[in-house]
Amino acid sequence: MSVLEETIARIAPRDKDAADRAKARLEQLTMPHWALGRLLDLAVDLAGITGSVRPTVTRKTVIVMAGDHGVVAEGVTKYPQEVTVQMVANFVNGGAGINALARVAGAGVTVVDMGVAGDVTDLVTQGKVVSKKISPGTGNIAVGPAMSREDAIRSVEAGIDVALTLRHSVDVMGTGDMGIGNTTPSAATVAAFTGASPEQVTGRGAGLDDSQYGHKVSVVEKILRVNNPDPSDALDVLAKVGGFEIGGIAGLILGAASMRKPVVIDGLISTAGALVAHGIEPRSAEYMIAAHKSVEKGHLIALNHLGKKPLLDLEMRLGEGTGAALAMVLIDAAFRIMTEVATFEEAAVSGAEQ
Amino acid sequence: MSVLEETIARIAPRDKDAADRAKARLEQLTMPHWALGRLLDLAVDLAGITGSVRPTVTRKTVIVMAGDHGVVAEGVTKYPQEVTVQMVANFVNGGAGINALARVAGAGVTVVDMGVAGDVTDLVTQGKVVSKKISPGTGNIAVGPAMSREDAIRSVEAGIDVALTLRHSVDVMGTGDMGIGNTTPSAATVAAFTGASPEQVTGRGAGLDDSQYGHKVSVVEKILRVNNPDPSDALDVLAKVGGFEIGGIAGLILGAASMRKPVVIDGLISTAGALVAHGIEPRSAEYMIAAHKSVEKGHLIALNHLGKKPLLDLEMRLGEGTGAALAMVLIDAAFRIMTEVATFEEAAVSGAEQ
Repeated sequence: MSVLEETIARIAPRDKDAADRAKARLEQLTMPHWALGRLLDLAVDLAGITGSVRPTVTRKTVIVMAGDHGVVAEGVTKYPQEVTVQMVANFVNGGAGINALARVAGAGVTVVDMGVAGDVTDLVTQGKVVSKKISPGTGNIAVGPAMSREDAIRSVEAGIDVALTLRHSVDVMGTGDMGIGNTTPSAATVAAFTGASPEQVTGRGAGLDDSQYGHKVSVVEKILRVNNPDPSDALDVLAKVGGFEIGGIAGLILGAASMRKPVVIDGLISTAGALVAHGIEPRSAEYMIAAHKSVEKGHLIALNHLGKKPLLDLEMRLGEGTGAALAMVLIDAAFRIMTEVATFEEAAVSGAEQ
Repeated sequence: MSVLEETIARIAPRDKDAADRAKARLEQLTMPHWALGRLLDLAVDLAGITGSVRPTVTRKTVIVMAGDHGVVAEGVTKYPQEVTVQMVANFVNGGAGINALARVAGAGVTVVDMGVAGDVTDLVTQGKVVSKKISPGTGNIAVGPAMSREDAIRSVEAGIDVALTLRHSVDVMGTGDMGIGNTTPSAATVAAFTGASPEQVTGRGAGLDDSQYGHKVSVVEKILRVNNPDPSDALDVLAKVGGFEIGGIAGLILGAASMRKPVVIDGLISTAGALVAHGIEPRSAEYMIAAHKSVEKGHLIALNHLGKKPLLDLEMRLGEGTGAALAMVLIDAAFRIMTEVATFEEAAVSGAEQ
């Protein structure tokens, strides 16, 4: 079997027994029934994912997958492509948004070159960037496919490999992305899987005005018309309208799921990767935790398709894994509630009258 | 001047210049414009509140104000009154929800007896509970006032004193509450200040069924009819339909505002206290940060009255300051974004084309 096939074969359902035991304890805590709402739901999720009522969720890392996109030739973004490689350096130097928010969560940041157009050899040599580069940028999806089917598989398997490499050092993985222009392939990916219209899934990315936005919608329409991706074949969607970092994110999710580790999904680009992972193996969605609702229009449509309800809504649209990093704090909260809050019996507090 | 008058006199407007300088820096960060949304708004708020673009917000404490309520005689809650004092012990022992969530935020927990019906002398003697007890429980507000106007002033001044005592050890204060039955006076307080109907502001508290809920609405109606509080006189509202912990929370907010410290407002009971503080001095609202939207029905109505938009919505309804503790993590995030993220110039990242 291939790495991908082996990984898929290892993805099991959640542990219902552990989830039930978690729920039983949480219902006895010294508080009105389920009074911490979604934090308690999250605690049950973590028990089901990890198979333990004392889930191992201490060591957290956001994996930022970086890649470039040939579709920038269509004028879908205000930023020059060189920003991708410049931001990779910024991540390594600790000066980006994800670095600050990962520190809030006590999480590490791992940067992966999935297909940056610039040269990051020095950073790779120094051990600061993981190189999984498939190619220096995808093809222009407004005129043809992003990549070959073989490269689509390679990108997913690269993400799986990143997850497996972190097996012994990371309990909770967060998905992150960097890539100028990557809201365009992400919007096309969401449209391909969900059947939503280009207008419904296309957002303003890094800040387009009305005229630029109308152009971007028309580019997404063209991408879907030219490539005609098959939603029943996730690798076809990825190859035709996706990106290397989207494939890497899909692989990371499949890898985390195969190890029964929770994987926190960030914004639009990460959720496009999650749709690919779900298309490859629907059960992988059981291991996903939706961090937040992005301002990017297609994001909620994608989350709904996955049956996921976001934890946060802070009007963010940065990507990089910033939402995932913040949501990791809520995982810490859920863990502490499950393990540190006393039950009525333990604390000798009177319960409710029936 | 009285302590209350002196405190009111010290509450100044936000520092617009510091807020403007914060905004100017945040607009230069290596991210699309305002791409971290409400975290950036929060950073501007913190600058305006503290008067600094490097706001001092490291040391955080949730102050849990506890008090009992004579209105429990009306059968508005499923829990016996003894739970208030039992939960005070649980807070001191570190086993309650607020203890777990304060640990997530790296925040301390200070427990204040504002008017618990039980005896907490031992805990006060041991220095584990601050005693500001006005009286062991309020009067039954379904038949008369909660307290005298003098006791209303005493409860607010007690809260001010708690805030002033923490002046040199705490940068960010969070409000919390404990008191069996306290959603009923809180609902009445919200109705009194906002003009909303009892049905609009009354929630299910710690978990009432339909019949119990209908009874609670009728009790809130009766409370307002019997007491007829004057919304233009906040101390009248507090004295007639409030509670000792609600007054203490109002005072804590006024005290924090007088010292230019941010004060994070928790759920329904805390926001009832915030309405009292706002009624006493409207400018105090400039120092409030709304932590979350509670499940309790009246909460959003109260926040809207204050012009505050909650940061989180996790379907919580526990009180104790649990929402405030979680929101303190977002204050940490806003601080780190303002002080740790590089600008385009600092990181040599290309900006957007105009």
